[in-house]
Amino acid sequence: MRKGKAFIISGPSGVGKSTILAELMKKRKDIYFSVSATTRAPRPGEVDGVHYHFLNVDTFRQWIDQNEFFEHAEFVGNYYGTPKKYVYEAMENGKDVILDIEVQGAMQVKAKMPEVVRIFIAPPNWPELERRLTNRGTDSADKIQKRLQRAKDDFDTANIYDYFVINDTVEGAVAELDAIMTAEHCKPEERIAMINQT
Amino acid sequence: MRKGKAFIISGPSGVGKSTILAELMKKRKDIYFSVSATTRAPRPGEVDGVHYHFLNVDTFRQWIDQNEFFEHAEFVGNYYGTPKKYVYEAMENGKDVILDIEVQGAMQVKAKMPEVVRIFIAPPNWPELERRLTNRGTDSADKIQKRLQRAKDDFDTANIYDYFVINDTVEGAVAELDAIMTAEHCKPEERIAMINQT
Repeated sequence: MRKGKAFIISGPSGVGKSTILAELMKKRKDIYFSVSATTRAPRPGEVDGVHYHFLNVDTFRQWIDQNEFFEHAEFVGNYYGTPKKYVYEAMENGKDVILDIEVQGAMQVKAKMPEVVRIFIAPPNWPELERRLTNRGTDSADKIQKRLQRAKDDFDTANIYDYFVINDTVEGAVAELDAIMTAEHCKPEERIAMINQT
Repeated sequence: MRKGKAFIISGPSGVGKSTILAELMKKRKDIYFSVSATTRAPRPGEVDGVHYHFLNVDTFRQWIDQNEFFEHAEFVGNYYGTPKKYVYEAMENGKDVILDIEVQGAMQVKAKMPEVVRIFIAPPNWPELERRLTNRGTDSADKIQKRLQRAKDDFDTANIYDYFVINDTVEGAVAELDAIMTAEHCKPEERIAMINQT
């Protein structure tokens, strides 16, 4: 059985990443969507192992000491992190892993897992991202400008990404993501061993 | 308009490359299939610019001197080569170019066009290639063994290829080729400029 590969998907607020990923999961059944660990308390309806892996602080710190995270951070008094073991388990079971991580975290993951493939979901252009943020109707004009500037800054440091998927239409973006995942399984390191098995 | 990219497709005799490429051309309309130049006389039904670019010896030698070929070779008294200009013209017009070239020629092309993407069409395994060569019924047992050995030798030097498409089923192989071409258009060098245009 072929092993899974790990893919980091990053993209600015408002680009439509959640919609794209939901559609991708319908199209490719062989995906494990990486679940973060946190020390914050579960909210009503949140299920351990589905929405988060809920850990107590001692366990989380122990996992940090044991180098069990690809990346972790503290945010308003709680820890958040990406545990390695579920990712590697899924890959061993032949599933491709999607890690939904922002640009800074992506750099940390790359350092610990050089073979990870990094994909940046980009808007067709900046005015279009501004339009989408405005149409969401959730942010003030000032906040929208801040998000837009943050998106441009992230994009400027994102030239280290392996691929850029442009979310012009959801269908087009999903097709590109799907193609990238298929293409990555055609790389020599995976295929040469496979053909020479016989 | 996005520019086209160039793809070398190599693969051993009997692997099913012609069938795959014919199916791929039906699926992707944006492909220019590179036509070789030759000094041999046209056979009945062969059309200049379609089957070959038919050149006289003086012109062919002049093109060699002017570095107009990605690669060229002499074979039983005639010259054969891959002219650059039609490839670059097609790319400028937004078409992806397929170069059907064997492993040695592929190395020459790569040296002159570092950005070319090299794809090797491989059999699922070696016994299957032997079976396909046998089923064609065109070669003697001795010739089949020679082709098989040549295929394995080529494969051993083909680790420099960017992708390996396994021709298990035609449909699967075409899907992989199609995915690779889509994915290659998501690379940073093409996309970053596109997004920043605005």
